[in-house]
Amino acid sequence: MAGSSIGTLFKLTTFGESHGVAIGGIIDGVPANQVIDIEAVQDELDRRKPGQSAIVTQRKESDKVEFLSGIFEGKTTGSPIGFMIKNDDQKSNDYDHIKEVFRPSHADFTYNSKYGHRDHRGGGRSSARETASRVVAGAIAKQILASLGIEIVAYVDQVGSIKLGSDIDYNVIDDNPVRCPNMIVAAEMEALIKEVRKDGDTIGGSVRCEINHVPVGLGEPVFDKLHADLGKAMLSINAVKGFELGSGFECVSMRGSDHNDLFNEDGSTQTNHSGGIQGGISNGMPITMRIAFKPVATIIQTQTTLNKVGELVEMDGKGRHDPCVVPRAVPIVGAMAAITVLDFYLRDRATNL
Amino acid sequence: MAGSSIGTLFKLTTFGESHGVAIGGIIDGVPANQVIDIEAVQDELDRRKPGQSAIVTQRKESDKVEFLSGIFEGKTTGSPIGFMIKNDDQKSNDYDHIKEVFRPSHADFTYNSKYGHRDHRGGGRSSARETASRVVAGAIAKQILASLGIEIVAYVDQVGSIKLGSDIDYNVIDDNPVRCPNMIVAAEMEALIKEVRKDGDTIGGSVRCEINHVPVGLGEPVFDKLHADLGKAMLSINAVKGFELGSGFECVSMRGSDHNDLFNEDGSTQTNHSGGIQGGISNGMPITMRIAFKPVATIIQTQTTLNKVGELVEMDGKGRHDPCVVPRAVPIVGAMAAITVLDFYLRDRATNL
Amino acid sequence: MAGSSIGTLFKLTTFGESHGVAIGGIIDGVPANQVIDIEAVQDELDRRKPGQSAIVTQRKESDKVEFLSGIFEGKTTGSPIGFMIKNDDQKSNDYDHIKEVFRPSHADFTYNSKYGHRDHRGGGRSSARETASRVVAGAIAKQILASLGIEIVAYVDQVGSIKLGSDIDYNVIDDNPVRCPNMIVAAEMEALIKEVRKDGDTIGGSVRCEINHVPVGLGEPVFDKLHADLGKAMLSINAVKGFELGSGFECVSMRGSDHNDLFNEDGSTQTNHSGGIQGGISNGMPITMRIAFKPVATIIQTQTTLNKVGELVEMDGKGRHDPCVVPRAVPIVGAMAAITVLDFYLRDRATNL
Amino acid sequence: MAGSSIGTLFKLTTFGESHGVAIGGIIDGVPANQVIDIEAVQDELDRRKPGQSAIVTQRKESDKVEFLSGIFEGKTTGSPIGFMIKNDDQKSNDYDHIKEVFRPSHADFTYNSKYGHRDHRGGGRSSARETASRVVAGAIAKQILASLGIEIVAYVDQVGSIKLGSDIDYNVIDDNPVRCPNMIVAAEMEALIKEVRKDGDTIGGSVRCEINHVPVGLGEPVFDKLHADLGKAMLSINAVKGFELGSGFECVSMRGSDHNDLFNEDGSTQTNHSGGIQGGISNGMPITMRIAFKPVATIIQTQTTLNKVGELVEMDGKGRHDPCVVPRAVPIVGAMAAITVLDFYLRDRATNL
Repeated sequence: MAGSSIGTLFKLTTFGESHGVAIGGIIDGVPANQVIDIEAVQDELDRRKPGQSAIVTQRKESDKVEFLSGIFEGKTTGSPIGFMIKNDDQKSNDYDHIKEVFRPSHADFTYNSKYGHRDHRGGGRSSARETASRVVAGAIAKQILASLGIEIVAYVDQVGSIKLGSDIDYNVIDDNPVRCPNMIVAAEMEALIKEVRKDGDTIGGSVRCEINHVPVGLGEPVFDKLHADLGKAMLSINAVKGFELGSGFECVSMRGSDHNDLFNEDGSTQTNHSGGIQGGISNGMPITMRIAFKPVATIIQTQTTLNKVGELVEMDGKGRHDPCVVPRAVPIVGAMAAITVLDFYLRDRATNL
Repeated sequence: MAGSSIGTLFKLTTFGESHGVAIGGIIDGVPANQVIDIEAVQDELDRRKPGQSAIVTQRKESDKVEFLSGIFEGKTTGSPIGFMIKNDDQKSNDYDHIKEVFRPSHADFTYNSKYGHRDHRGGGRSSARETASRVVAGAIAKQILASLGIEIVAYVDQVGSIKLGSDIDYNVIDDNPVRCPNMIVAAEMEALIKEVRKDGDTIGGSVRCEINHVPVGLGEPVFDKLHADLGKAMLSINAVKGFELGSGFECVSMRGSDHNDLFNEDGSTQTNHSGGIQGGISNGMPITMRIAFKPVATIIQTQTTLNKVGELVEMDGKGRHDPCVVPRAVPIVGAMAAITVLDFYLRDRATNL
Repeated sequence: MAGSSIGTLFKLTTFGESHGVAIGGIIDGVPANQVIDIEAVQDELDRRKPGQSAIVTQRKESDKVEFLSGIFEGKTTGSPIGFMIKNDDQKSNDYDHIKEVFRPSHADFTYNSKYGHRDHRGGGRSSARETASRVVAGAIAKQILASLGIEIVAYVDQVGSIKLGSDIDYNVIDDNPVRCPNMIVAAEMEALIKEVRKDGDTIGGSVRCEINHVPVGLGEPVFDKLHADLGKAMLSINAVKGFELGSGFECVSMRGSDHNDLFNEDGSTQTNHSGGIQGGISNGMPITMRIAFKPVATIIQTQTTLNKVGELVEMDGKGRHDPCVVPRAVPIVGAMAAITVLDFYLRDRATNL
Repeated sequence: MAGSSIGTLFKLTTFGESHGVAIGGIIDGVPANQVIDIEAVQDELDRRKPGQSAIVTQRKESDKVEFLSGIFEGKTTGSPIGFMIKNDDQKSNDYDHIKEVFRPSHADFTYNSKYGHRDHRGGGRSSARETASRVVAGAIAKQILASLGIEIVAYVDQVGSIKLGSDIDYNVIDDNPVRCPNMIVAAEMEALIKEVRKDGDTIGGSVRCEINHVPVGLGEPVFDKLHADLGKAMLSINAVKGFELGSGFECVSMRGSDHNDLFNEDGSTQTNHSGGIQGGISNGMPITMRIAFKPVATIIQTQTTLNKVGELVEMDGKGRHDPCVVPRAVPIVGAMAAITVLDFYLRDRATNL
């Protein structure tokens, strides 16, 4: 496999299946002498955890992170930070019904085909539970970035056809279970999610992420353009189907004379269609991204599907799943942004002696 | 910098500035004993080169690839393939007007800020000329993939607001200068591009890419999901602002019951919203992607911009530029797809003994 | 730091300090469907653990490995194997005397200078305790290699000036506490180690390692020559000062006519000065290496040393240390050989389609 | 193959066969704004080139380096430096006699077995000619290191049984064709090499390398210890069979009380058995290494060897070869040291913010 690591200098490697003993990871390349607030890490994890509100999965997982190394007397030592989150809710019998069956639009079929042998319980390694490890690493990266003045904000900007407009208040993001920065739109989204769930169905959504006060100069052309690696980081999150930087797909129908971001005297730009990155290098403007999440594949409906011996069979949906993934995806998107930006911050230090 | 390589086992490293001595690259990890058709490589390069039609830049560059190593008696030896493309058209005086000025929405400002010293001529390293090296590596990857039965097709599906519908004929892609698989839509697109150029302006566009007959099992979860690396590869191309797999951003407004791809008995699926990848691993269905290209930043209009000493100055647009980048982007997209898929094909061979 | 990983496809990343909560690691890129004998892994760990005989350190560490992921129903899933070994013996007060002092020829000074903040207890991250994680990964690699017919044998061939001759019996390696394949020489070595310990001193030693039945063709020229990476793997073990392949330093005084390994008809060679590798690629003969270990730096004698504020101070040696490191180094050398060879075995599979 | 790159941030990738069109490479991650003295690069190449004295191969190769990118107006731009050296002396008929035959202790057999298809002329990719590209990259690294005060010196310290003693004058290294820092010993070595050549034979040798004024703190534990990567770099040079740091294999017979390097008040040490590195991190003392080179395998004698169809045949030695490789290996060793140390210098900058 060997695909379980991300980053060049600030590098996260994760392990763990949904219903194994534990999930966790190793963060290598953490700068030394950084004060780490362990509670703030747990707070980020709590934003991702199941059961936190009425519109997310009701699985019970305490998701308590345990640090095993790399932090001594409250500060990083520069040595790798090992951590784990035990899997308490290992009701693996819940998953006996999918042992021999490939759920539609899940990774059961592809994992089985690729590896021949898999831990089927709860999706095993393909479960989004793995992203809890990313949130831990992201929370540490965020704290280090904050000490450098760099801030990351992520929020839901669309659920189904309900879109956030320009009336945005970052302060209310965590005041509603959807994590939308507008309480009225959030209420509409929440109602839609509840309606969808009542139907035993699920719905897609999108998350916007902004990274503010990034210094000019991060990004390593030509292949490791800053947005290329941000894109990879986001596309590696379960259920993501699309990524946009700045103007995104809207740029397709625009003219250069409208799209060009004209400079101000201080090097900032009057517009930000570039999304804070030009030629793969940050230009000091906010980095703006949008990430599309598909509707969760697990639905509480009967579907025809394939079993391991190649027969089409009826499968009843059951289990505790999210009707819409974006409320819990918000901290994951923020985490991947933080991991990526810190890595490029460190890489940039080698540019000039 | 150290960002000039892509790939894990099949690895391309490129060098070269727009108006230096030459551009080129090294392809390492090429499987041995593969017959290489050098003319077919040159043909792919010719699809990318300037001056090939009335709707692209009229710069004169012969773009002749010279192979320096790794191919012996017509076959690969397993040793790295070094190659270069000399820069014949080095009219560097053409660029004196931008030596002290940062062009809006170009990488002049960010390169200058990051590196302090840059080859400004024609954008130097930030020029899309670098992508010619990608086309060379991609053409070699394509030939190897073809021997494995894997085919890649790329084409323009939107220019400005003109969208390709469902009436598609792959055979006509290279019969029109836009590289659109519908001659009627192509003609409309061509007319739009000419109109835009007449205005001294530019226009955005998008490219679709399909990879067919990919075996089940390519992709290395969790971070190196196949589409995550495809996304990175595409986002690393100059002017790209967005990437979609399968349903892409449309998934946001869909329900799970509509989005799920139900299986056929042979493991194929009735629909392909997944875009040929589930859980980061190819499922045997066509891999489908869409890539958004912004309108070229160079316009033949007067713009206010910033110079090196921090003054806002008027800049007249000049030079030979593309009014729309997508016709020439088609072979680049195909090349990046080929490079990525071959790399994952090789990586997958380590999964089972 | 970001130096905590080794391997390209079969990749080990480790974490943990000597007296933190736990040490452990993640093994990524493990081929799927491999039966793993957990007890055999523990057996290898027991060969490395403290307190196993009278001539090694008498610290009490149970060194029990716990697997957290990647093995399901006794077989690998292709997903990363996470594991940890808890640190039971955390008598950290034992180390208060070195908190403010840099022990001579230890890494206290360099870690303090590089990172500014360190876990001083028992050497922290610089402790050879980290190598227990390597033994775990190595034991898994060995089992997979064994299923491919590849065998690794390591043993002590010198302690102080006492050298093993040509009278060798692999069967007795674990019948003596030195791990020397000749019981008479082993007894001499044991006596020397005891004598040295009585003096409160330590002594150097060397380990030989042979890898048998390696298929022809492993190694990736030019930089990743098989012996270059074997050398790096060995030199990354604590206390190693030298590495030899085949004839090693003896080749310096040899003539080509004597050193050349002449072929037999089957492609094997009459001699093996090459040590099983030519041009960086295995040639099918046994791979033979020799690794030099310095005398342990901790001695039970009073030494003058430096403290954190730059004063020279007297330091009394204490603590439970090894008088000679090689008996416990044998499984570590074997582990690093296994990790490296398996990685190259997997890499080679990408050479030919 | 994918083994043609070395380095993490300062990264060299090479291409080229002995008798192909050209050899060369790409240096990625070069810090920006560094003044480069091109003539000094050529001077280093001239120290490696054939025909420079009576005791090296008399092949005629001009070895002229051409830079293709990355240097603009005399200074690095931070973009990759592409370069090539054309192969003028392509008398490939000289090698027809080895097309079907595997020379003893050469890489003919292993390359043929691994890749199935090879450029046999002059050893093709396995030829030491590839090291010319390393010398180019090393010369650039050396210039950058020199601006940081770091100096590298390499010289021959043994040929056959003739050893350099403690009477050393660095100023005379290039005053004799052996590159030994003692003119009397050099004369003896030269006489031995001539005698060996007269016999149609070859002889081994060793090179010492010192790196002075390295700041404290370079090296990335645990796997990327500074000496582990220096060892890999040296072992990747053709014909190398052994590597020692500091006391090297002598440490085996030493006691800790003799081997420990006691501190001076300024953090330097009274002795330097550690060879300038403790725990994988530089301690500010000179880094001292010794590298063993085997006698060249090509001898002007008749040897029995194997051909491609598995027959033992007589082969007459011919061609223009080096009777002893170390005089020309000196600049290669220095280059690999420079490449490695600069890479770790850049990596270390990410340790503390």
